[in-house]
Amino acid sequence: MPVGTLATVKSLDPRDLTEMGASMILANSYHLHLRPGDDLIREMGGLHKFMGWSGPILTDSGGFQVFSLAKLRKISEEGVEFQSHLDGSRRFFTPESVMQIGRNLGADVVMQFDHVIPGQSEEPAARDASERSIRWLARCLAAFSTDGDAPEQALFPIVQGGIHAGLRRDAADAITSMHEWTGFGIGGLSVGEAKPAMYEMLEVVNDALDRDRPRYLMGVGFPEDLVEAIRRGVDMFDCVAPTRMGRNGAAFSSDGRVNIKRAEFRNDPRPLDEGCDCAACTRFSRAYIRHLFVADEILGLRLLSLHNVHFLLSLTRSAREAIAAGTLDSWSSDWLTRYHSRTATSL
Amino acid sequence: MPVGTLATVKSLDPRDLTEMGASMILANSYHLHLRPGDDLIREMGGLHKFMGWSGPILTDSGGFQVFSLAKLRKISEEGVEFQSHLDGSRRFFTPESVMQIGRNLGADVVMQFDHVIPGQSEEPAARDASERSIRWLARCLAAFSTDGDAPEQALFPIVQGGIHAGLRRDAADAITSMHEWTGFGIGGLSVGEAKPAMYEMLEVVNDALDRDRPRYLMGVGFPEDLVEAIRRGVDMFDCVAPTRMGRNGAAFSSDGRVNIKRAEFRNDPRPLDEGCDCAACTRFSRAYIRHLFVADEILGLRLLSLHNVHFLLSLTRSAREAIAAGTLDSWSSDWLTRYHSRTATSL
Repeated sequence: MPVGTLATVKSLDPRDLTEMGASMILANSYHLHLRPGDDLIREMGGLHKFMGWSGPILTDSGGFQVFSLAKLRKISEEGVEFQSHLDGSRRFFTPESVMQIGRNLGADVVMQFDHVIPGQSEEPAARDASERSIRWLARCLAAFSTDGDAPEQALFPIVQGGIHAGLRRDAADAITSMHEWTGFGIGGLSVGEAKPAMYEMLEVVNDALDRDRPRYLMGVGFPEDLVEAIRRGVDMFDCVAPTRMGRNGAAFSSDGRVNIKRAEFRNDPRPLDEGCDCAACTRFSRAYIRHLFVADEILGLRLLSLHNVHFLLSLTRSAREAIAAGTLDSWSSDWLTRYHSRTATSL
Repeated sequence: MPVGTLATVKSLDPRDLTEMGASMILANSYHLHLRPGDDLIREMGGLHKFMGWSGPILTDSGGFQVFSLAKLRKISEEGVEFQSHLDGSRRFFTPESVMQIGRNLGADVVMQFDHVIPGQSEEPAARDASERSIRWLARCLAAFSTDGDAPEQALFPIVQGGIHAGLRRDAADAITSMHEWTGFGIGGLSVGEAKPAMYEMLEVVNDALDRDRPRYLMGVGFPEDLVEAIRRGVDMFDCVAPTRMGRNGAAFSSDGRVNIKRAEFRNDPRPLDEGCDCAACTRFSRAYIRHLFVADEILGLRLLSLHNVHFLLSLTRSAREAIAAGTLDSWSSDWLTRYHSRTATSL
């Protein structure tokens, strides 16, 4: 899922996403509540209409901001008081208020409100946050289910537990016994823990969850992480990396990352990634895109963002084909071997 | 002609221009010579290939920078020494070097190198600049004609003469007697003179030029100016206004200008301009585009630029239809009456 934090996937047009075959996007409850306001979006006919995107939308709940805005929030059992990063105003987020924001936005999938902690937290802190997240899940479910007039929406629980296998198993068990869920979030990873710990947690959690429901690994989006996670049973991803890196001049490629601002690309007639069929690579050279970045031209941000989003969408399409063909193990091993060998010697 | 100073129409994709029916764009010799360099663009296969635009391109010569960068240049009969606004390096522009830049870029129409002065200059200064421009035109023509291997390109002369009717007539006569031109530039207007003086000069110049060749009024692009100039026989325009205003949050509309950042548009579900069929107005509300500007989202710049360029292209299409139908006088009078009455009471 390309990330449209503030009701736009940065530097792209929704039409670009459709053309690239994006099937779902993410938006952010916390940010949209602050600006322009979920009440305004409801008044304007909901998020799909507001941002001109007719495909499914998943809304992240604000749980990640409990982690990323740690200096601007205070946690209690009732919820989290944030000090707005925009104007300093105080906003109290609770499981119930987050469900109301999801309703106002009209998201297709609403993530539960959860308590995200740093990736290397010790067991007691991880247990506390995981158990609170499960109690908040019960409150989300109760709030979510009471609105008879509601549009058709799915609530996804989020498995927490840090890097502690026992906590992860306990969380998965508690969640699966609470309700028949449409899908599952896996949270609290890619927040500072070591990669092997992340992969181990994915194996533990995916073993414990229903195999016939989508599992969504939250906030993970580098190519190699996607492939490692797909091998371990993950179905859905989101990450700001493709657009953020694109705005900084970095392109994914099958030969590793390309920093387009480097002088060596000044007169390079090749596309960003040879063989790529995106709307940037089929029309423009590295020399041109480098020129756009050097001259601070907005089209450069758009072209690299287009390419990077397309790169990840293509990668997940390839993975789906490998799954359908029963060749995921060999496909992913080959892909990772190639990617790491090229990256080690790359640009 | 939408303006692509640095080989990109700011915040738009060349595909957008094709879809909107732009038939020709402008790029700038001075700026492209400095960055990324016309030699590099030649090495990359020419400007069309470099920037992914297959339609015609006209290159402005640097004469406008003689005016706009007055503090950074020294004029002699031989040419103009500029101090680069980017790195302070010294660059000597001559009629001959400007023709070489046009060749390197592979432009379809190359404007002569001319001497542009402020709009309210007195007769002696205007005469000096106009006569120098005519001498430079002869040198441009000589340089332009000597290259047997050259691609098919047209050189347009530029009629100068400030706000002095006699000088304008003399310039038009001298130019038309020099060569059988493909088209004519009208320069040195919209550079500080009063509007009535500009309209009078247009009448003088258009009377003096061949009626069967396109006349291009350089640097003019506000809607009301286009209509006034078309009434007086002008065929081609360029101006950075639609994209520059768009990036500043201002939209053209048939009811005058809309400053999208105003609080009144916070929950306005209407498009920028009701009845407009551009890719912004058919998909997005004022409320959404205002949100994009308030949140500093790049898509906002793109949508307003799209709308403004589309607005001017639609306006000139309507003018062509009126000309073909023999109703230009009544069409333009009606349009101007409506525009001015709405603008006077507008947003």
